[in-house]
Amino acid sequence: MKIVILGSGNVATHLAKSLYEKGDEIVQVFSPNLENAKLLADKIGSRFTNHLNQVNHDADLYIIAVKDDAIEAVAKGLTNVNGLVVHTSGTTDLKILSTLIKHSGVFYPLQTFSKDKDIVFDEIPICIEAASEIQVNILTKLAKKISNQVYHLDGEKRKVLHLAAVFAGNFSNHLYTLANQILKENNLDFNIIRPLIAETADKVKKNLPENVQTGPALRDDESTINKHLSMLTDLPELQKIYQTLSNSIKITHK
Amino acid sequence: MKIVILGSGNVATHLAKSLYEKGDEIVQVFSPNLENAKLLADKIGSRFTNHLNQVNHDADLYIIAVKDDAIEAVAKGLTNVNGLVVHTSGTTDLKILSTLIKHSGVFYPLQTFSKDKDIVFDEIPICIEAASEIQVNILTKLAKKISNQVYHLDGEKRKVLHLAAVFAGNFSNHLYTLANQILKENNLDFNIIRPLIAETADKVKKNLPENVQTGPALRDDESTINKHLSMLTDLPELQKIYQTLSNSIKITHK
Repeated sequence: MKIVILGSGNVATHLAKSLYEKGDEIVQVFSPNLENAKLLADKIGSRFTNHLNQVNHDADLYIIAVKDDAIEAVAKGLTNVNGLVVHTSGTTDLKILSTLIKHSGVFYPLQTFSKDKDIVFDEIPICIEAASEIQVNILTKLAKKISNQVYHLDGEKRKVLHLAAVFAGNFSNHLYTLANQILKENNLDFNIIRPLIAETADKVKKNLPENVQTGPALRDDESTINKHLSMLTDLPELQKIYQTLSNSIKITHK
Repeated sequence: MKIVILGSGNVATHLAKSLYEKGDEIVQVFSPNLENAKLLADKIGSRFTNHLNQVNHDADLYIIAVKDDAIEAVAKGLTNVNGLVVHTSGTTDLKILSTLIKHSGVFYPLQTFSKDKDIVFDEIPICIEAASEIQVNILTKLAKKISNQVYHLDGEKRKVLHLAAVFAGNFSNHLYTLANQILKENNLDFNIIRPLIAETADKVKKNLPENVQTGPALRDDESTINKHLSMLTDLPELQKIYQTLSNSIKITHK
């Protein structure tokens, strides 16, 4: 399969490298930033360009892996291609492509990617959507090359998944940040809390989170909750979050 | 060192097993529930009792690993012992012991323990507090037998740590629960989000969380945020949490 990657960010980079390693041919990388395009292209032995009108027209698959609000502009440069054009966004409608392009779909890897951290694609869920069964099959086959978890989901379910991912991923990481803020204000090192974070995540590998909840709010331990709230008097934003999440734990587990 | 364990819950069990495996002698387990006392005692070859007045008076160390609000009652049964008496609580003052008992301290393992999940103690931070340097040294030596991360912290810092742990551990797990609630309402399986949770936690093993934050709130992506809020119209509690945490991410990273 001849593939063009449009984008050079985290998703584009990890996806392109993974496909390349599984033997697919990435014929070209497009990025508005020529340097970034070259950087990625060099890793996967492909050509590169920063002009949309120079994008190869003979590829089988075009993967648009750019920021959500740039997808449409990139898609407009691909209206004449014959290959299948997909985006990689959790929140963006397939329609944004299908109104412009003959064969379109979605290829959404549900994961948090960092530039400097390698990742094993095998277990990353990939969510597929396309207008026709033929295209679904093409994308499923490709996805199965790089991942063991391939799902065929419509746009509504994909958006639900993205929302759940914000809670489980983005918001959890922010709670780690707030924990570190509390530690720093008291000259304590983040290291001291790293094993707890690792174990908290590890526990839900085999359990459902609602079955392994612990802590003062679960126990209705008002004395500890009040002590904690009073410790946060100088950090009203954190105090509000503590209160809101403790109440939510009580509601969930009552 | 001859040790008596008072308690038979998660902390008591994991701590007792770990000390036993490192060659310490657990001479007795006390629990108000005789069956639970026996269950733990059988695992570590020790005697057991459910009567405080039958607790061995000749041990070197008494570890009170019971619920915070039960510590004092247990301590009252140990006023005549000569050994060192410690509790394992993150939030409880040393004073609760020191006013009753000659030699007292704190031995607080910062981790989330589950009954059915084994845990490697080596990397669990253990926080030590005691009135005299001699007792600090005794506890530090013992802690170092089972863990590579031993900290000497006063009560104030220990409480700060416990508060940070609520954010990073309890609250994160609750966000996983809320994510699962969203998934379940849409017939999606929690499995699909497990790799994201694992990677989110894995990223902060080598990075600080504030440096690896991602998501719509970080990008000030109001369009996605508003879509997500409207998807949560029927779950006002979750909508409030989404709003509160998104605002907090913006404040932190502005």
